[in-house]
Amino acid sequence: MAAHAAAHDVIEVIVAKRDGGRLSESQIDWVVDAYTRGAVADEQMSSLAMAILLNGMDREEISRWTAAMIASGERMDFAALSRPTSDKHSTGGVGDKITLPLAPLVAACGVAVPQLSGRGLGHTGGTLDKLEAIPGWRAALSNDEMMAQLESVGAVICAAGDQLAPADKKLYALRDVTGTVEAIPLIASSIMSKKIAEGTGSLVLDVKVGSGAFMKTPERARELAETMVALGTDAGVRTVALVTDMATPLGLTAGNACEVEESVEVLAGGGPADVVELTLALAREMLAGAGRDDVDPADKLADGSAMDVWKQMIRAQDGDPDAPLAAPKETHDVLAPSSGVLTRLDALAVGTAAWRLGAGRSRKEDPVQAAAGVRWHTRPGDTVTEGQPLMTLMTDEPERIERALAALEGGYDVAPAGTAYDATPLVLDRVES
Amino acid sequence: MAAHAAAHDVIEVIVAKRDGGRLSESQIDWVVDAYTRGAVADEQMSSLAMAILLNGMDREEISRWTAAMIASGERMDFAALSRPTSDKHSTGGVGDKITLPLAPLVAACGVAVPQLSGRGLGHTGGTLDKLEAIPGWRAALSNDEMMAQLESVGAVICAAGDQLAPADKKLYALRDVTGTVEAIPLIASSIMSKKIAEGTGSLVLDVKVGSGAFMKTPERARELAETMVALGTDAGVRTVALVTDMATPLGLTAGNACEVEESVEVLAGGGPADVVELTLALAREMLAGAGRDDVDPADKLADGSAMDVWKQMIRAQDGDPDAPLAAPKETHDVLAPSSGVLTRLDALAVGTAAWRLGAGRSRKEDPVQAAAGVRWHTRPGDTVTEGQPLMTLMTDEPERIERALAALEGGYDVAPAGTAYDATPLVLDRVES
Repeated sequence: MAAHAAAHDVIEVIVAKRDGGRLSESQIDWVVDAYTRGAVADEQMSSLAMAILLNGMDREEISRWTAAMIASGERMDFAALSRPTSDKHSTGGVGDKITLPLAPLVAACGVAVPQLSGRGLGHTGGTLDKLEAIPGWRAALSNDEMMAQLESVGAVICAAGDQLAPADKKLYALRDVTGTVEAIPLIASSIMSKKIAEGTGSLVLDVKVGSGAFMKTPERARELAETMVALGTDAGVRTVALVTDMATPLGLTAGNACEVEESVEVLAGGGPADVVELTLALAREMLAGAGRDDVDPADKLADGSAMDVWKQMIRAQDGDPDAPLAAPKETHDVLAPSSGVLTRLDALAVGTAAWRLGAGRSRKEDPVQAAAGVRWHTRPGDTVTEGQPLMTLMTDEPERIERALAALEGGYDVAPAGTAYDATPLVLDRVES
Repeated sequence: MAAHAAAHDVIEVIVAKRDGGRLSESQIDWVVDAYTRGAVADEQMSSLAMAILLNGMDREEISRWTAAMIASGERMDFAALSRPTSDKHSTGGVGDKITLPLAPLVAACGVAVPQLSGRGLGHTGGTLDKLEAIPGWRAALSNDEMMAQLESVGAVICAAGDQLAPADKKLYALRDVTGTVEAIPLIASSIMSKKIAEGTGSLVLDVKVGSGAFMKTPERARELAETMVALGTDAGVRTVALVTDMATPLGLTAGNACEVEESVEVLAGGGPADVVELTLALAREMLAGAGRDDVDPADKLADGSAMDVWKQMIRAQDGDPDAPLAAPKETHDVLAPSSGVLTRLDALAVGTAAWRLGAGRSRKEDPVQAAAGVRWHTRPGDTVTEGQPLMTLMTDEPERIERALAALEGGYDVAPAGTAYDATPLVLDRVES
């Protein structure tokens, strides 16, 4: 960490932002560092966070805030690798398993993917939770292991170490309990500080919008996307964002083992159309960012080379890609209440149901169930017949089913046969600097 | 304390206010109670306080917030007294010793004055600090002692007990370190919760405005005055507010012993004209509030009866009203830099100088010096001659003089002889419900 920035008075910093002013570079460096060291108290940072949420920060302030969070920890460097690097970050959705097929697919195209991921909290699943459904697979890698795997396999999905942007870790935990999560400057700097510290050469952001996403409106999603693209650009990382729909969950499953299975289907050349579409769209952006847009990723799904990288990637982290995955002890079918057209399947309802079935957690220290989740058999636009199974709920603990059913109440609509259904495009917007 | 209010989720309460909504009565009751009990953490209350500062509260919310703070502790009741009660609260100024002559004066007019006061912090002096310059005088009284003194003497100035609005005590300490002091709803509810819990029948507020006051503009002072008058009215306390000037310090002294001496001069029928004017204006409001506007307080200064009550009041609290007060070990005269007219004497500069000389404290646990302070020999509008003493700095520690002089730099103006001086009226505004 750099030498401590010039000392400031924390009240003066809070009051400056409270009264609608800009924070100076020196104020930002100081307050982020002092908070990380414990010289600024939680109750002081939380009132500052609320002032930032309500009064905003401009591009220069957010860039400096992000740089200060990066400076609180170590930075990784992949310059020694023989191939270019690219990474993807999703703001989180329901059924969003895209990282699983995407990382090996991009690696199969000759671009290394250093994907530091997290665990799920609430109704959105975590990539590490999903991969841990694979027997033997381990999320924790040393930096040396990560580098070796990137060179040999080309793709790694692992847990972010504690040394990456510790200021962000502390601030995120605080925002979580103080009603200050939804500040775009703080969301953007939280995501981007980790991604920039991780050292990727290019970055593609998947900013979700809709009921199952953090951003509920296209305007907010666009604002977040623009803010993050600006941050990446300011830090010298080629960054592009896609704004994609999360009103409807992705694919046909939300959970852990079930999402791994669906990802493997995609790598085998099959899988739900929307998952394939988004995987390819993001892969093309990552390849373009890494200067390899001469390769068509669709070919690498078709010829099995993405699947090969997947198996190598799982084995390199002690997982068995061919082992059978856990099956749920209990299942429960949700039946169509009438015949007609499924016109809506709400991502938040499905995500909450999967969470309550045991696929997600309420507190960081809670375990998750590998086999828990929701599998839906119809998608909006499909014709359904009264009494046919719309979804299957999966869990190891039957007492969870009732609460999952409550989450699904009002979460889908079946309209009379012949009702028109206008499909929303999956990719809604694209932001580049 | 009442039974706990219905449980709420603290994030839901913070987010409601953050997003510009109203807090329900149940939410307010719960959050104030839960914070007092420690079930809501400091960092959660501070982000809520910032959201309140930036998004405001309406009259009903502030009334309920005040009621919840009152409910966190005990309420006093003076109904058993043989006379009506009235109290005064000042938002704090420099040289503001008015409580000292005012309480015995109003008591001499037949209205009991239960004055719970505080100590000073920063550049504004505290009433208890001033009275403690009197040998033997003690600030701490039991409720029974207070009641007995109100009945026998008619006036009591003492420390507020810990049982009065403990929620306010905890919240005030938090606001002080989180940049959330300047929220009118929180300032108003803080003051009024204590005054209403104290049980006075009527209340007069002296809302200061100007450099030496908390409120820097007449608009903010008026808003605070209106908010507090509404709170008092909602709680059944007859409440009136005067908005008074604090661009210039009151009287001719700022400190502890020196302000007691000046107060005694007023009680003896002399004293600076502005102190007499404000004391009488506030006394008339207090008497009107208590239904005794048939009495002219000026008579009670003239006939010595206010002085009699003062001496009884000091003796009742073990003080010796005739004992000599501490003299400073060191004095330093500030001389007029040129001849002409003193056109400005800044209250904040004088208050800060007195504070740095040892009359005030920076932290609650710091002691104050009885003899420290500033005595000025000229007031704005007076003609001065180059080299004449404008002010005398007083302290027990000579090393404090330099920092006090720094505080006074730019704090007064001497304009060429003949320059017109427009005196600001002392009482600028009056607010009643």
